[in-house]
Amino acid sequence: MFFGEGMVHVRKDYTDLYEAIVGLNDAAFTGKVLDYRTQKLIALGINAAASDERAMKKQMMSAMKEFDITRDEIVDVLRVVLLTSGMPPFTKAMKVLYELTE
Amino acid sequence: MFFGEGMVHVRKDYTDLYEAIVGLNDAAFTGKVLDYRTQKLIALGINAAASDERAMKKQMMSAMKEFDITRDEIVDVLRVVLLTSGMPPFTKAMKVLYELTE
Amino acid sequence: MFFGEGMVHVRKDYTDLYEAIVGLNDAAFTGKVLDYRTQKLIALGINAAASDERAMKKQMMSAMKEFDITRDEIVDVLRVVLLTSGMPPFTKAMKVLYELTE
Amino acid sequence: MFFGEGMVHVRKDYTDLYEAIVGLNDAAFTGKVLDYRTQKLIALGINAAASDERAMKKQMMSAMKEFDITRDEIVDVLRVVLLTSGMPPFTKAMKVLYELTE
Amino acid sequence: MFFGEGMVHVRKDYTDLYEAIVGLNDAAFTGKVLDYRTQKLIALGINAAASDERAMKKQMMSAMKEFDITRDEIVDVLRVVLLTSGMPPFTKAMKVLYELTE
Amino acid sequence: MFFGEGMVHVRKDYTDLYEAIVGLNDAAFTGKVLDYRTQKLIALGINAAASDERAMKKQMMSAMKEFDITRDEIVDVLRVVLLTSGMPPFTKAMKVLYELTE
Repeated sequence: MFFGEGMVHVRKDYTDLYEAIVGLNDAAFTGKVLDYRTQKLIALGINAAASDERAMKKQMMSAMKEFDITRDEIVDVLRVVLLTSGMPPFTKAMKVLYELTE
Repeated sequence: MFFGEGMVHVRKDYTDLYEAIVGLNDAAFTGKVLDYRTQKLIALGINAAASDERAMKKQMMSAMKEFDITRDEIVDVLRVVLLTSGMPPFTKAMKVLYELTE
Repeated sequence: MFFGEGMVHVRKDYTDLYEAIVGLNDAAFTGKVLDYRTQKLIALGINAAASDERAMKKQMMSAMKEFDITRDEIVDVLRVVLLTSGMPPFTKAMKVLYELTE
Repeated sequence: MFFGEGMVHVRKDYTDLYEAIVGLNDAAFTGKVLDYRTQKLIALGINAAASDERAMKKQMMSAMKEFDITRDEIVDVLRVVLLTSGMPPFTKAMKVLYELTE
Repeated sequence: MFFGEGMVHVRKDYTDLYEAIVGLNDAAFTGKVLDYRTQKLIALGINAAASDERAMKKQMMSAMKEFDITRDEIVDVLRVVLLTSGMPPFTKAMKVLYELTE
Repeated sequence: MFFGEGMVHVRKDYTDLYEAIVGLNDAAFTGKVLDYRTQKLIALGINAAASDERAMKKQMMSAMKEFDITRDEIVDVLRVVLLTSGMPPFTKAMKVLYELTE
């Protein structure tokens, strides 16, 4: 499943919200042209650019586990993060990435 | 060229800075594994997620002109923007996209 | 309708996405306890805090038209924006608010 | 008191700044029309939307302690956060909320 | 005066809020050690990093008019913006700067 | 050295990227007019305004160690952060600052 611990509670206690999120998630990751893998890399880039450690860690783990996305591929995403968003999100993401892959 | 009007001045008046930016840009878009086209889509997603109208417009124009990236592909990027960053950046990006493609 | 011009195109060209957004919007604004009016004020505060001129303008117009939300009420929201997010989003929002109400 | 540990030091070491903050806080939360409770919910929504774990946790604790704001009410705020700001701040806020209420 | 058009209305219609803002502004720009000029450069850097065109333009104009801050000094601020916040805010700020100084 | 742990890996595994970052860093902190110390204070302000705990902590430590920047000077930077970016980044930065200086 694609959801963290927060979502377990949403599923149980706020069913209407949970279903809307499932619908949103499906529509988001069912691209007309781009494949799921590429969309995952884009999500990873956006979360890293936002300097959100928790979100980028979850994205990286899911990217490596579900899609065999490699460290080099993630670094290629982070190159773009560096250019568009500066050093602090880039170094934070590199630290997270190496903690996950060493 | 990948630069807007601001960069014309940097090139002329701040040469050291200009060269550093060229070096950064080259390193950013010379992925080890991902191709330039995919990296462009990631840059587009990050700029759209940041709700930066000027930056996303430039990314979209360059994506369509240089890489024949289609509207459907950009919408597939924006699906991820909606999920990760909410409605305001998504609707802003859709508006910009249709202004460019109609 | 709650949607801007970008959404007109989504409705026509990307039906699956449109339906997911409608579902999300419904779940978001169907609070268990808080009424729609209060939720609209919260949305207005979040958009103003994000310094997003386009989004805050749309929120203010819809707030005043659909819910008879007054200028004083919006200023009460912007007081919180000032405290949590600083002067630039506050002054931008005050400018937009007075352009709409004068 | 509304202040965290950082403010204890400001009060003691930077009196002029402390007094300005007290004045700002009073003006922010003394709405002309909206009551304090509603303004607190707005502040909570803005902090959650900014994905600031520390700030949203403090807002949630103070909301529940001082105003008997319930979990359902906070979830109603977070519904708006999901719509305006996307999944990462929403899931982070849900996680914090359930840690505080279980 | 340090205030834009939005503040004219605050002064007239929301006196308590106006006074709190004046107090905050005074406390903010009355550094114990740093002079006002340096603090202005810091404010300019923060507004530029936030990619806020309106706020950075006001900061640049006030910096040049009140403190004879030069273009080279502002570019030195923007160098730091590039490093910490990436290309989009940097190129936007360069464009604004050259529009103001040509 | 100016780099955190993430950069150690970049240096070893992604040499081209590392060199581009060194070039960028040099160009960023080699101001034409402003001295390195002032530019460091600006970087600190931008990182604090972005509410990035990790980045502001590193900036504060390096500022105090390399430039004998004092707590009062950093508080003068944070006064500007409060005005431009609101209470949450300000209180977070004050907490970090006092943890480092007590």
